Amino acid sequence: MIRVGLIGYGYWGPNLARNLVEAADCQLGAVCDQRPERLAMASRRYPSVRTTRDAQEVIEDRALDAVAIATPVSTHFDLAMEALKAGKHVLVEKPIALTSLQAELLTDEARSRARVLMVDHTFIYTGAVRKIRELVASGALGRIYYYDSVRINLGLFQHDVNVLWDLAVHDLAIMDFVLGRRALGVSALGISNFADQPENTAYLTIAFEGDVTAHLHVNWLAPVKIRRTVIGGSSQMIVYDDLDPSDKVKIYDCGVDLAKDEADVHKMLVSYRVGDMRAPRLDLTEALQTEVLHFLDCIKTGGTPESDGRAGQRVIRILEAAQESMRERGRMVAIPAERGVLA
Amino acid sequence: MIRVGLIGYGYWGPNLARNLVEAADCQLGAVCDQRPERLAMASRRYPSVRTTRDAQEVIEDRALDAVAIATPVSTHFDLAMEALKAGKHVLVEKPIALTSLQAELLTDEARSRARVLMVDHTFIYTGAVRKIRELVASGALGRIYYYDSVRINLGLFQHDVNVLWDLAVHDLAIMDFVLGRRALGVSALGISNFADQPENTAYLTIAFEGDVTAHLHVNWLAPVKIRRTVIGGSSQMIVYDDLDPSDKVKIYDCGVDLAKDEADVHKMLVSYRVGDMRAPRLDLTEALQTEVLHFLDCIKTGGTPESDGRAGQRVIRILEAAQESMRERGRMVAIPAERGVLA
Amino acid sequence: MIRVGLIGYGYWGPNLARNLVEAADCQLGAVCDQRPERLAMASRRYPSVRTTRDAQEVIEDRALDAVAIATPVSTHFDLAMEALKAGKHVLVEKPIALTSLQAELLTDEARSRARVLMVDHTFIYTGAVRKIRELVASGALGRIYYYDSVRINLGLFQHDVNVLWDLAVHDLAIMDFVLGRRALGVSALGISNFADQPENTAYLTIAFEGDVTAHLHVNWLAPVKIRRTVIGGSSQMIVYDDLDPSDKVKIYDCGVDLAKDEADVHKMLVSYRVGDMRAPRLDLTEALQTEVLHFLDCIKTGGTPESDGRAGQRVIRILEAAQESMRERGRMVAIPAERGVLA
Amino acid sequence: MIRVGLIGYGYWGPNLARNLVEAADCQLGAVCDQRPERLAMASRRYPSVRTTRDAQEVIEDRALDAVAIATPVSTHFDLAMEALKAGKHVLVEKPIALTSLQAELLTDEARSRARVLMVDHTFIYTGAVRKIRELVASGALGRIYYYDSVRINLGLFQHDVNVLWDLAVHDLAIMDFVLGRRALGVSALGISNFADQPENTAYLTIAFEGDVTAHLHVNWLAPVKIRRTVIGGSSQMIVYDDLDPSDKVKIYDCGVDLAKDEADVHKMLVSYRVGDMRAPRLDLTEALQTEVLHFLDCIKTGGTPESDGRAGQRVIRILEAAQESMRERGRMVAIPAERGVLA
Repeated sequence: MIRVGLIGYGYWGPNLARNLVEAADCQLGAVCDQRPERLAMASRRYPSVRTTRDAQEVIEDRALDAVAIATPVSTHFDLAMEALKAGKHVLVEKPIALTSLQAELLTDEARSRARVLMVDHTFIYTGAVRKIRELVASGALGRIYYYDSVRINLGLFQHDVNVLWDLAVHDLAIMDFVLGRRALGVSALGISNFADQPENTAYLTIAFEGDVTAHLHVNWLAPVKIRRTVIGGSSQMIVYDDLDPSDKVKIYDCGVDLAKDEADVHKMLVSYRVGDMRAPRLDLTEALQTEVLHFLDCIKTGGTPESDGRAGQRVIRILEAAQESMRERGRMVAIPAERGVLA
Repeated sequence: MIRVGLIGYGYWGPNLARNLVEAADCQLGAVCDQRPERLAMASRRYPSVRTTRDAQEVIEDRALDAVAIATPVSTHFDLAMEALKAGKHVLVEKPIALTSLQAELLTDEARSRARVLMVDHTFIYTGAVRKIRELVASGALGRIYYYDSVRINLGLFQHDVNVLWDLAVHDLAIMDFVLGRRALGVSALGISNFADQPENTAYLTIAFEGDVTAHLHVNWLAPVKIRRTVIGGSSQMIVYDDLDPSDKVKIYDCGVDLAKDEADVHKMLVSYRVGDMRAPRLDLTEALQTEVLHFLDCIKTGGTPESDGRAGQRVIRILEAAQESMRERGRMVAIPAERGVLA
Repeated sequence: MIRVGLIGYGYWGPNLARNLVEAADCQLGAVCDQRPERLAMASRRYPSVRTTRDAQEVIEDRALDAVAIATPVSTHFDLAMEALKAGKHVLVEKPIALTSLQAELLTDEARSRARVLMVDHTFIYTGAVRKIRELVASGALGRIYYYDSVRINLGLFQHDVNVLWDLAVHDLAIMDFVLGRRALGVSALGISNFADQPENTAYLTIAFEGDVTAHLHVNWLAPVKIRRTVIGGSSQMIVYDDLDPSDKVKIYDCGVDLAKDEADVHKMLVSYRVGDMRAPRLDLTEALQTEVLHFLDCIKTGGTPESDGRAGQRVIRILEAAQESMRERGRMVAIPAERGVLA
Repeated sequence: MIRVGLIGYGYWGPNLARNLVEAADCQLGAVCDQRPERLAMASRRYPSVRTTRDAQEVIEDRALDAVAIATPVSTHFDLAMEALKAGKHVLVEKPIALTSLQAELLTDEARSRARVLMVDHTFIYTGAVRKIRELVASGALGRIYYYDSVRINLGLFQHDVNVLWDLAVHDLAIMDFVLGRRALGVSALGISNFADQPENTAYLTIAFEGDVTAHLHVNWLAPVKIRRTVIGGSSQMIVYDDLDPSDKVKIYDCGVDLAKDEADVHKMLVSYRVGDMRAPRLDLTEALQTEVLHFLDCIKTGGTPESDGRAGQRVIRILEAAQESMRERGRMVAIPAERGVLA
C-alpha cells in the first residue's frame, strides 16, 4: 500500500485525488490547500481523508510515501525539493519548475536519494499520443516533414505565467515524447493584448535535429476551442484532433513523389499519391489513471517514469529559450542540450 | 456590349470563360492558350469562339475591349502591359505580377491611359469576406486583437512560384480588404522539404498599423484541407471557415474584461463574457460572377475596381518582404509604403 | 440537512452519489448494491459512507429522509413503493416503472403520503433542453411542423429491456417536457437482429395533439453515436445536437411562404425565407446537479418536481403503446390519457 | 460520333448539356425548352447548338441518335416513348415515369427496338456508392442488419410530385443498386404541413428479402442539409455521408458477439468488438460524366445500362406502394415483383 499526500486542491488537484483514491494499493493520506473552502470541498467528497492548510505537515508526515503537487508553478520547486529531501517520491504538475536549473536540481536530488520524480505531462499518457508515438517510432510515416499544432480557446488568464507556460507546455511535452529528437532552437512571437498582462497568444517555431520543423500556435483569446496537431511525413501523415469524440487520430496514406520533367514549364515537378485514411482504435483509459498507476509502479519497481525529471527539464529548456526569443522579437535562440548525467 | 479576349485556358481560365460568357452585355471574343489540347477543350465548349495560340493576336484584336489574363505569374506583366498599351482594359489573375515595380508600372500605365486594371483577388468578392469587412468596418468587433489564418491542403506543387505566391496571396488580399490597414512589416519562415524545389510550407507574421498582428500558415503538403480564419476583437470574434457548407462566418459575442484584484495571488486578473454565436445569412452568388460584373461595370462607368492595381501592389509588397524575410530566417522586414500617386 | 440513501451502485449510481455528496445541506447516508465489488468501489471513494447489500436496510433506516434508486427497471416499483410506504421521499431512475399501472400506484402513494416522488428524466434538467422548452413555449417557432430525433450508438445490450426502454425513454421525456402536448397515438417498428434478444433498433411515430408528428429512431447497433433532434416550425427551426461541444442548440430563421401562381406549371408554389442562425449561450451546469438540487428543494418546500410521477406515467404510457404497436407490426395504437386525479 | 438532343433546360438540363458537350465522340445536337429565357441561356453558353421550343422537332430530327430528357416527371413517358418510337436511344431523368406500367411499356419498347433506355439514377455512378456496392457485394459486411438513410434539407417544393418522388427516389435507386435484393413491402408515413400541397416529409420502412429492413427519412422542410446513410452488418458497418468533403464513406470494424451467461441477471448477453475505422480513397469523377460515358458506351456496344428501364421500374414499384401506404396511414403494402421478361 502506497500512501500519497496531495498538495493543492484547486483546478487539477481533485482529478489527482480521484485517481489516487481509485488506484489499487494506493491510499490518499492527506489533502492540503491554503483555502478553507477547497479543503471543505475535499472533506465533503472524502470525509475520512485528513486535510490541512500546512504543506509542511504533509511533507513531513512519516506515514506518507509520496507527495503529489498541484499548486501554482512558482511553488513547485520548493515543495518538490522539500518533499524529496524528506524522502518522498514526488509527482508534480507540469511544468516541473520555473527554471531549467530548478528542474536539474530536482532531478539530481531525486537521483541521489533514489526517489521517483515524475512530472505530470498528462497527454503523453493518453491512448492517442501513445498511438502516435508508436507510429512515428515504427517509421511508418517515412521521413518527417513537419509538426504543426494549434491549441487555442477562450481560456482563463493566469497572472503568474503566460500562455506558453500554460498551453504550450502540453505540446512541448507531446513533441518530446512523440518525436524523440533533440530541440535545437526556437523562435517565438508573443502577443499581449492587455497592458501589464502576460502574453495571451504565442507562435513558436522549433528546429529539431534531423531537419524537422515544428510550429505551435497557442492562444488564450480564441472564440473556439481547437486542439489539432498535424504531422507530415513522406509516407503517411497524421491528424490528431483531441476534440474529436470518436476518431482522434487519423492516418492518411498520402505521400509525395518527385517527377522531373523539364519539357513543359507549366508542368508540376511534384506529384501526389493520395490513398486511404484510417482511424485506429485507441485505448480509452483516462490518461491520469494510466499516469498514476505508472507513478505507483515506478515507486514499487524502482523504474524511471516516462515523464521523469529530465523530460521536465527538456520542456523547460524550450520554454526558456522561447521566452528569450519573445523578448528579442523572434530571434532564433539555441536550446542548450540536456545536462549530461555525471558519474 | 463589351468584348473580352481570354489568354490562358488552364486551371482557372475556364472559370473566367464561363462567367464572361454568362454575363449580360459581355461577349467572349477569343481564347488563347499555347497548348492545342486546351484550345480543343475550349472549342468543344464554346464552338463559336475564336481560338488562337498567339497571345499577340488577342492583344492586338481591335474588336476586343478587354483582355483577361490567366497564365503563369511570370507572364502577367508582359501580357498585361502590352494589352494596356494596346488600349485594352485588363483583368489579371492573382498575383498581379512578379514584383511590386511591375505592379506599379502597370498601375501607372492603366491610369495614364484611363483603362481599368483589375487583379483577380477572387475571395474579396465572396459573400463571406464582404460580410466580414462590413463587420470589421462597422466597429462591431471593438478593438482588433489579432488575425489568424490557416490555408493548407495537399496541393499541386508549382515550380515557378512557392507556396506564398500560390496560397498566401489569397490571405493577403483578404487581409488588405478586410482590415483596411497598412502592413508595416513581416517575418516569414519557409520550409522546402524537397531539394531544388520552392518552399512548400510557410508561416508569416505581419504587423499592421494600429497594433494588429496577423499570422498565416500556408502549406501545400497537408493531408487535410483547412481554410480557417479567426479574427479576435474586444467585443466580438469571427471564425470564417470557408469549407463549412452552411455557416461560413460565425460571430461570437465573447469579450474580455480586466478585473484587477491583487488580494489573492491565484486569482485571475482577466475575466470573460461569453455570449451567443450568430451565423449571418450570406450572399451565395459565385465570387467570380460578382467580380466579372464589377470589372464590366468599371469599364462602363470608369470606376475603380475594389481590387485595382494598387491593391495588387500592396499584396506584392508583402510577398516581396516575406520572401526577403524567409531568406534571412525570419528577420522582421519592413514593408515599403504603397508608392504615392504623383500629380 | 437531508439524508439520502442510494440503492444501486452500477453504471448510473456513482453519478447520483457524487452529486448527492456535493450538494449543500445533503448527506449521502448509505449505499446499497448486491455486488460486493461495487460496494468496495463505493467505500474506496466514500470511506465514511455506510454500505450494505440489503436494500431493506436502507429503506427502513429511520435516519434517512429520502431514497435514490438506480437499479434495473424491473425492481423500480417494489423498491420505490416500499420506500414511500416507509415515509421516504423517492428519486427513481428512468423509466419510473415497468408499467403505467405501477407508475400510477406510485404516484398515488406519494400523494397520499405527501412525499416527493421524482423520476430521473435527466435530460430535462440540461441547459439545452430547458432553452428549447423556453423557445417552444414562447411561441418563437410559430406553428410546430414536426419533431424528429435520432439517438443511436453502439450501445450495451440489456436483456431486461429493449432499446425503447433504454434509449427512447430519453426522447419521450424530452418531448413531454418541450412540447407540453398530449401524445395521442404511436406507431412503432422494432427490429431484433439476434434470436431471443429484445429489439435493438426501433422507429417510432407519435401523433401529438395539435397536429404535431414526432418521429424517433433509436438504435443500439450503430457504428457512430448520433444525438440529434430537429424541431421544425413555421417561423424558426431548432437543431439540437447533444454531442456538439460548443453549440448544442442552433436556431434557424427559416420559414416557408405559400405563393400561389398557377400560370406556370413548373413554378414552385412554396417559397422560402432563409435567414440567420443563432446558437444561444446555454447554462452548462451538470444536469444531474440541477436535478438533485431540485429534488432536495421539493423536499424542503413541498413542491412538485418537474419530472414527477405523472410525467413518469405519461412516458410509460407511450412506451406501452409503442410496445403493443411493435407486436402488431406498426399499427397506430392509441395512448390512454393520463389518469385523472381523483378527489 | 453520337449526336444527342436534349429536351429540358431547367435545373438539371445544363448539367447534362455540359457533360454531353465534353464527352469524346459525342455532340450536343439540339436543346429544347418551352421557356425562351432558358433557350437564350443555352445559346449564350453554346452558341452553335440549335435551340427549339418544340420537343417534336428534336424527337424527329434524323441527325440525332439519342435524346436526353430532363423535363417534369409528368412528361417523361410521352417524350421517352415517342423518342423510342422514332428510333432514338433515350436517357431520362429520374424517376423514369409516373407509373410502373409506363416504365414497363418503355422497357418493352426499348427492347423490341433494340434501343438503349437508361434512367438517370445519378448517385449509382458516384465513386462513393460504387465503393459501397463493392463492399456489400464482397460480403465484407457479413450479415446485413439494417439500412438507414436520412435525406433532408430546406428544399424547393414541387407541386407536381411529393417529397417521395423528388428525394426518396435517390435512396431507392441507391438501395436497389447497393443491396441487390428484392423489396417485398413498404410502410410509409407522409406529412403535408400545407393545405392542398403534396407531402413535404415522409418516413419509409422497406422490407427487403433476406430479412433486411431499410428505413428512410426524407424532408423538404429541414433547416439543415443531411445526406447520411448507415448500413449495419455483423462484421462491418458503413457510414456514407455525402456532404463530407473528404471522407464520404467510412467503414467501421465493429461487430457484435452473443455471449450467453445466465448466471447474473444484470449481465449483458451481447458484447461488442469495436475496431478501426477506414475511409477508402474514392473515385472523384463527376457522377454525371461516368453516367453519360456509360450511356454512350451502351449505345456503341449494345450493352445494358446499370440503370436500365427495369431498375427504373423497380424504383417506381416501391414509390407506388409507398404512396398507397401513405394513403392508408402506414399499412405495410406488398411490392409486386418486377414483371417477368416474356419470350
